[in-house]
Amino acid sequence: MLFPTEDGERYQLTSPVAMPRAAGFLWNRRMMMQITCRGYAVAQFMQPEPAKYAYAPNLEAKTFMQPEQPYYAHHPGRFFYLKDEETGEIFSAPYEPVRKKPESFLFSVGKSDIAWEIVWQDIRLEIRLSLPVDDVVELWQFRIVNQSGRARKISLYPYFPIGYMSWMNQSAEYRADVGGVVASCVTPYQKVADYFKNKDFKDKTFFLHDRQPDAWEVRQNVFEGEGGLHAPDGVQAEQLSCGEARYETPAAILQYRLELADGAANDYRFLFGPAFDDGEIKALSARYLSEQGFTATQQAYAEYVRQGKGCLGISTPDAGLNNFVNHWLPRQVFYHGDVNRLTTDPQTRNYLQDNMGMGYIKPEVTRHAFLLALSQQEASGAMPDGILLAEGAELKYINQIPHTDHCVWLPVCLKAYLDETDDYALLDEQVIAAESGESASVFERISQAMQWLLSERDARGLNYIAQGDWCDPMNMVGYKGRGVSGWLSVASAYALNLWADICEETGHSDAAEKFRSGAQSLNQSVNRYLWDGNWFARGITDDDVVFGIACDKEGSIFLNPQSWAILGGAASDEQRGKMLQAIEQRLETPYGVTMLAPAYTAMRDDVGRVTQKHPGSAENGSVYNHAAIFYIYSLYTVAESDKAFELLRKMLPGEQADDYLRRGQLPVFIPNYYRGAYHQYPDTAGRSSQLFNTGTVSWVYRCLVEGLFGLKGSRRGLEINPQLPSHWPEAQVTRSFRGANIQVNYRRDAGVSEVKVLLDGVALPARCIDNVRPGNVYKVEVLLPL
Amino acid sequence: MLFPTEDGERYQLTSPVAMPRAAGFLWNRRMMMQITCRGYAVAQFMQPEPAKYAYAPNLEAKTFMQPEQPYYAHHPGRFFYLKDEETGEIFSAPYEPVRKKPESFLFSVGKSDIAWEIVWQDIRLEIRLSLPVDDVVELWQFRIVNQSGRARKISLYPYFPIGYMSWMNQSAEYRADVGGVVASCVTPYQKVADYFKNKDFKDKTFFLHDRQPDAWEVRQNVFEGEGGLHAPDGVQAEQLSCGEARYETPAAILQYRLELADGAANDYRFLFGPAFDDGEIKALSARYLSEQGFTATQQAYAEYVRQGKGCLGISTPDAGLNNFVNHWLPRQVFYHGDVNRLTTDPQTRNYLQDNMGMGYIKPEVTRHAFLLALSQQEASGAMPDGILLAEGAELKYINQIPHTDHCVWLPVCLKAYLDETDDYALLDEQVIAAESGESASVFERISQAMQWLLSERDARGLNYIAQGDWCDPMNMVGYKGRGVSGWLSVASAYALNLWADICEETGHSDAAEKFRSGAQSLNQSVNRYLWDGNWFARGITDDDVVFGIACDKEGSIFLNPQSWAILGGAASDEQRGKMLQAIEQRLETPYGVTMLAPAYTAMRDDVGRVTQKHPGSAENGSVYNHAAIFYIYSLYTVAESDKAFELLRKMLPGEQADDYLRRGQLPVFIPNYYRGAYHQYPDTAGRSSQLFNTGTVSWVYRCLVEGLFGLKGSRRGLEINPQLPSHWPEAQVTRSFRGANIQVNYRRDAGVSEVKVLLDGVALPARCIDNVRPGNVYKVEVLLPL
Repeated sequence: MLFPTEDGERYQLTSPVAMPRAAGFLWNRRMMMQITCRGYAVAQFMQPEPAKYAYAPNLEAKTFMQPEQPYYAHHPGRFFYLKDEETGEIFSAPYEPVRKKPESFLFSVGKSDIAWEIVWQDIRLEIRLSLPVDDVVELWQFRIVNQSGRARKISLYPYFPIGYMSWMNQSAEYRADVGGVVASCVTPYQKVADYFKNKDFKDKTFFLHDRQPDAWEVRQNVFEGEGGLHAPDGVQAEQLSCGEARYETPAAILQYRLELADGAANDYRFLFGPAFDDGEIKALSARYLSEQGFTATQQAYAEYVRQGKGCLGISTPDAGLNNFVNHWLPRQVFYHGDVNRLTTDPQTRNYLQDNMGMGYIKPEVTRHAFLLALSQQEASGAMPDGILLAEGAELKYINQIPHTDHCVWLPVCLKAYLDETDDYALLDEQVIAAESGESASVFERISQAMQWLLSERDARGLNYIAQGDWCDPMNMVGYKGRGVSGWLSVASAYALNLWADICEETGHSDAAEKFRSGAQSLNQSVNRYLWDGNWFARGITDDDVVFGIACDKEGSIFLNPQSWAILGGAASDEQRGKMLQAIEQRLETPYGVTMLAPAYTAMRDDVGRVTQKHPGSAENGSVYNHAAIFYIYSLYTVAESDKAFELLRKMLPGEQADDYLRRGQLPVFIPNYYRGAYHQYPDTAGRSSQLFNTGTVSWVYRCLVEGLFGLKGSRRGLEINPQLPSHWPEAQVTRSFRGANIQVNYRRDAGVSEVKVLLDGVALPARCIDNVRPGNVYKVEVLLPL
Repeated sequence: MLFPTEDGERYQLTSPVAMPRAAGFLWNRRMMMQITCRGYAVAQFMQPEPAKYAYAPNLEAKTFMQPEQPYYAHHPGRFFYLKDEETGEIFSAPYEPVRKKPESFLFSVGKSDIAWEIVWQDIRLEIRLSLPVDDVVELWQFRIVNQSGRARKISLYPYFPIGYMSWMNQSAEYRADVGGVVASCVTPYQKVADYFKNKDFKDKTFFLHDRQPDAWEVRQNVFEGEGGLHAPDGVQAEQLSCGEARYETPAAILQYRLELADGAANDYRFLFGPAFDDGEIKALSARYLSEQGFTATQQAYAEYVRQGKGCLGISTPDAGLNNFVNHWLPRQVFYHGDVNRLTTDPQTRNYLQDNMGMGYIKPEVTRHAFLLALSQQEASGAMPDGILLAEGAELKYINQIPHTDHCVWLPVCLKAYLDETDDYALLDEQVIAAESGESASVFERISQAMQWLLSERDARGLNYIAQGDWCDPMNMVGYKGRGVSGWLSVASAYALNLWADICEETGHSDAAEKFRSGAQSLNQSVNRYLWDGNWFARGITDDDVVFGIACDKEGSIFLNPQSWAILGGAASDEQRGKMLQAIEQRLETPYGVTMLAPAYTAMRDDVGRVTQKHPGSAENGSVYNHAAIFYIYSLYTVAESDKAFELLRKMLPGEQADDYLRRGQLPVFIPNYYRGAYHQYPDTAGRSSQLFNTGTVSWVYRCLVEGLFGLKGSRRGLEINPQLPSHWPEAQVTRSFRGANIQVNYRRDAGVSEVKVLLDGVALPARCIDNVRPGNVYKVEVLLPL
């Protein structure tokens, strides 16, 4: 039912029913699009804030991407109705809105396109969606083949609903001069100032064809009629009624009346997207609509996606892992690094982590991101809640709520970049503050950020949480200004230690000393006030209530404080043993390790919004992958290799059909979360959020590089410290590193008692390839004990 | 197909197809609800801002009521599926989502309930919706009768979709303890402060039954399954699957498996609405769910609606007019006056006009409204953009945009109240300003408002428009602070003259002199700068461009400046003649008189948002009834009786089926607008907006009282100056006035050459009943020339 192609380049699904939400996603620098196997689609583009060009049938709220948003008959999508003119039977491809099962169905998600192959009553349909690299336009190819052994009369109706564009002004017409349907609207507003913001908006939606249709309709309600979308009046009639939509909900619908000889095939190309005016529509048509336009665009886009191929090629006993790591994971990392989730004000922590991942793909992008982020540092040393990427951008939504953790991510993410590139020169770059105009080096700025973390502590020496730390909705722990965060305190210690190492490395030993002692002081405070006997508490509220502790009925244990206490040095070996046991007992589930447990079922006034979220949903007891991956990362740092791999493997797409059915997702990305609250709601636990925006993926990549395959860079060169799971007899990895090509062959060997690394047959006692030279090929043997 | 009941109390429709949007509306002091003949529904309640308890399937924007909002398969509604267990056939009542045509169909809209009578395959269904006066709960009665001459096996499924409640937390369960389905959500928020606003929200939606069902389902998607809403899996299966919704989109669905003997009837009662908690649900159940609860509630609600019966009972040759004026118009006036459109910050001009209408029904409410509005007057004398009705209310949406016309409405509306009540004592009431705490009398406050109007003028003596006057979206004429409004200038003159009369009447002759001379000065300026040869211009922009004039290709003539120039005295008789001719030629259409013409088709930067609105839609060339009624009112003030009646009649519901089909509306309310742009878009012109919120209705009532029937109060008593259309031979009116009952019999008589009024057979040369005494009955004969 679900399988990868042999080359791993595509994932394919043979039924639209078992996993109705299974979807592929495509993006480019200005848009992103997620489309399900059934044809429902969500697409957004930047102007400069996220906007739509195909809308819901009612007025939809502007919001961040919704997790698990429901689909319904009139949801936006891309559909093709067929009618057998001899029998009157109707069908729709890919599947919605008619929902008639075809003889065969194949939904095929590639890295640079999404395609369907469908046979209905001996009529074969091939549908393919692609995007260009830079423009906001969908390229649709549609082929119809008569393989029925006789001539057929078929009406074909591309049906692209456009939806409720605006209450101010919406209309649509068929436009012979541009060759398709053009819908127009005016983005509604009330304040004069918004007029000037809106006036350059692309308020037109076009649907262009390369072949002249026989008829058309642009009024959604007239097309649908009394028949409903499952049997529209428009399709039941002999011919579409060629009307105009005047303030009615627009749709782009064409009719081709075909007489297909046996074996005959027709090809169609369509363009769908937003535009500012007719001139832009015509220019897009000229650029893309021809056959050559499609071919060149597809090639260029495939080339664009190939840029994100990452620095690891793996061959392990785990085919699903190979496929995911070689093909899909770096694509998702690249997406995050290249387009910053298509927002103009990414949260600072997300921006830094997404760019950390980009360090394995295009480190120059990462370098630029650090410089940009630091240019927005506040005079106090604090980092802002979001990084503004576009002129006129503003902090919106959650970025208007003060969070206290952003500084932590500077050294945490920078360390990966430095390890990968050895670009310590970055630390000496001068950065001019956007606000004050003052200049300071990267080194000085990060030191100020660390100093800010040390200063933002209460009398106990713990970090304030304000209206939230990394866990956004924990918004009432410290809103009165006194509550502290256990996680942030151990995370600060981790950041300070990392930064102290870098200070040391760059000859700033006084600074190193100061920051290391700051980390120690934090860890002491954490141990004094937050150790609960078997794990660390999550924090202390404004009213001095310690929470995230065993006697709490809900939210008694949180994952993040434990993971980061391991990373930051707060936990002794003995403590760590207790923590790991508690996590295994209380947080691990068949579908991954949850972020907290038991999930809250009722509001806790002193904790906040997280306790009001649905149990098992994002952040309230879900398998929140971004939290889970830090636990996995921390396990690799203490050589808990098998446990780390077990949990990592649960997070990643596998090969078991059962997993997919439960998750309802194709194995082409790691979602933001899997539904949790396994003990309360076992039926829905494990379900994918379908959100492909997540800081998780950069860290998964880092876990693979530093942990699983142990191929981390250092000032010396490439350190080789693999942590293959004990059941793997062997593995091969190709590692791109500082311009060199490292070919590593891992093998378990009864003859060795500890890891042995050989370069060109010569043992490396320090397990490090020194002075890696760009252009060189290094062949490495790694022998591992059984 | 469409007809009123004999007593005029109900409107009935016998097909759901011809007018799919035909709807009834019910409201009470805390909620309002509009439901179509097909079952789609929009319902809102106050907590304190408008909120929903049944939602769209996607995240819906919070906004004012949308005009002409589209319906679609998953739109919120109230439905009842039936399945014939012997044949498997399915049906849904009233009509959606299955859309199968029944043998007979009757949609019946009453003043205090909405009902259906439907026969499908010899199964008769009677459905009735009522509301209580004070609680937010829908009362549904459902009767099923087997009239097929044999026993039947039927499954009945009430299906009340609840929709996408929240991305934070939503769920639903069947709850045996409360007897029905309870869906729960948490209103999403991000800012801490919003938690405290939200925490008392009624975030539960309940659906309670009086009879135990055999099965249930609460998961929308499981119920729908692959069948779609037109043939849901849930209905196709033998029995609903009795699940729980955990973060899935909830719906309330029950199944009753019935074995109905021939002639057997079953009755069901259901409650649907929002609640804070189980306790409230149980209390509502106890109060309403019983048979006695339903009966008592329906009686009390009918009594409530009867309070709004108005001060006119008419019997004219025009049956449609009689029906509308006796039954539906005062109901709509009462709705506006009693609940202020269910907003916490009604626009000041709307608030004053809605309460002006209430002066004919419950004048004590009007009195209170003036006092409240004036208590929010600013120190400058200006009136705010909205009147705050609830604690914690804020100015929202359009009320955040500065408009300059609000003061005008004080004397304009007050005059009607004084005429009706003779309550000049109101002028001496002291009003303490909410802002400053200063006290001033009503008389002083309105004088200050008039002074403010006089002061807010440019060097030409014309009133500034700022970001808009009454026509909200004319937002860029004067946003730089220099543009002026032609309409506002003549309206100020009207207000000043009215106020000068009242000053005179109350012995303030100096003030009268001052305001009258102010009005003159305005009128002179208007004539000097804005007379365009045949009509008055609409205004002058910030950059000194006069607009609304003959040489403008679009928006060359506006209705409002003409109407109000007649009212305010700017227009000479000669000018008026030209204006009337221009209006007839340029603004009148078969469906009413439009607000401006030609409708704008493109943005005019110096005019603003109105020019971006869809041509023919609200305010851009529509038959905007609120504007049209002022033209009609002005025509009555200059005795253009036949033209006034002709236009009035086009606005009001008539009896011609053709009209209704075009309008798509039942004749039970006057909508905000009818689609205009008749010359550009003749097919859609005349279509109803379906919005029943409109300042029009108070003025229609005033036109009937003062103009058509000429029964206006004065300090002396009741002035009788009818303007019956010349084709009416006679009419009878019962007028409640200051506690007396005036029975007027109008008759055209060849023997009279001018209007004669006889009281108890005695001629009244001044045509005025002096000293009207409460409790008295006055019989009046009015003889009119042929």
